[in-house]
Amino acid sequence: MQLYSYFRSSASYRVRIALNLKGLSYDYVPIHLLRGGGEQFSPQYRKLNHDAIVPTLVDDGHALQQSLAIVEYLEETHPTPPLLPATAVDRAHVRSLALQIACEIHPLNNLRVLKYLKHTVGVTDDVKDAWYRHWVEAGFETLEARLGGDARTGKLCFGDSPTLADVCLIPQVFNAQRFKVDTARFPTIQRIYDHAVQLDAFERAAPGRQPDSE
Amino acid sequence: MQLYSYFRSSASYRVRIALNLKGLSYDYVPIHLLRGGGEQFSPQYRKLNHDAIVPTLVDDGHALQQSLAIVEYLEETHPTPPLLPATAVDRAHVRSLALQIACEIHPLNNLRVLKYLKHTVGVTDDVKDAWYRHWVEAGFETLEARLGGDARTGKLCFGDSPTLADVCLIPQVFNAQRFKVDTARFPTIQRIYDHAVQLDAFERAAPGRQPDSE
Repeated sequence: MQLYSYFRSSASYRVRIALNLKGLSYDYVPIHLLRGGGEQFSPQYRKLNHDAIVPTLVDDGHALQQSLAIVEYLEETHPTPPLLPATAVDRAHVRSLALQIACEIHPLNNLRVLKYLKHTVGVTDDVKDAWYRHWVEAGFETLEARLGGDARTGKLCFGDSPTLADVCLIPQVFNAQRFKVDTARFPTIQRIYDHAVQLDAFERAAPGRQPDSE
Repeated sequence: MQLYSYFRSSASYRVRIALNLKGLSYDYVPIHLLRGGGEQFSPQYRKLNHDAIVPTLVDDGHALQQSLAIVEYLEETHPTPPLLPATAVDRAHVRSLALQIACEIHPLNNLRVLKYLKHTVGVTDDVKDAWYRHWVEAGFETLEARLGGDARTGKLCFGDSPTLADVCLIPQVFNAQRFKVDTARFPTIQRIYDHAVQLDAFERAAPGRQPDSE
């Protein structure tokens, strides 16, 4: 398998964690999102990924995109250890935590959106940074309420074993801290993050450990 | 089952289509997103949905949220007819089409984001409308390229039977047309939409057919 990835991309980070949790090895192909206007826009990369976004996972000649679709694919093709719980209700709970991050927080804060705000809407850096923090904080507030009030929450988002929810949460917390969000305001999220980043699969997936890290 | 829904909400529309495709009946509970500042913020509704967003599906006492997690739940609990293809690679393809809409287009265009742009960032209606169109058009351009260039595309996004991808695409096209996006520029998307809206499950899920339609 080849993973087309950018060290700082949250979506790439999710897939790196999932690959590590599944014990799968892969070739790391760096795609620099800023250099030369963005390597993701090259014609070669767009053949793999029309959207020109990372990550793309190539498995057996099939180019797969969208991080959550890739993690579900890994779950189906390599079911052990499972990243989703056993019952349909619990699976829906874990998926909904993951989707809350992937649909309600992250899309508002990715690079292309921040670039559009700055260069097309023409806002100041202060307004752009406030935008970033607003969506992270609003999302984390409800996520904190959900995680803090649910008996299924353990050392991690669902019990003590990593799931799809942790695969999404840890990169989002990392990203938030990089943008100076005080994540200590969200004690359950902070506690889960502090625990997860010490686990080998998460530690090896961290942006600072990637070959293209700067 | 009870579906907490707003007639115009794309995410509610997705779940209505999926419930109809699965042949499941449900009680429709309207949540008006604008009236009185938004009924989704009421303490009663927030007990079901901390995020204060629609839809919520209550099944056997379990409150499920996030439309894609709900559709995956319906797929697991009511597998016939399937909304995902048979092979892992094809399932990843269909999920990635759905997620491209759910993560790259829709989150940038929902009500709370447009409200923040207008009232907090303070942009004009023209800038807000240009923002809306920008993200729909950028997303539809790459979606059109993917669908138009893939032999798996049929009368619908994957072959001729409805899948999770159609469940997401049709509400997004409806929404785009409401905001005056010229969807005829995207011929494959337009063709799939025109076919799908004539199918009974999609027709009955349409915003204009809901009890809270205005």
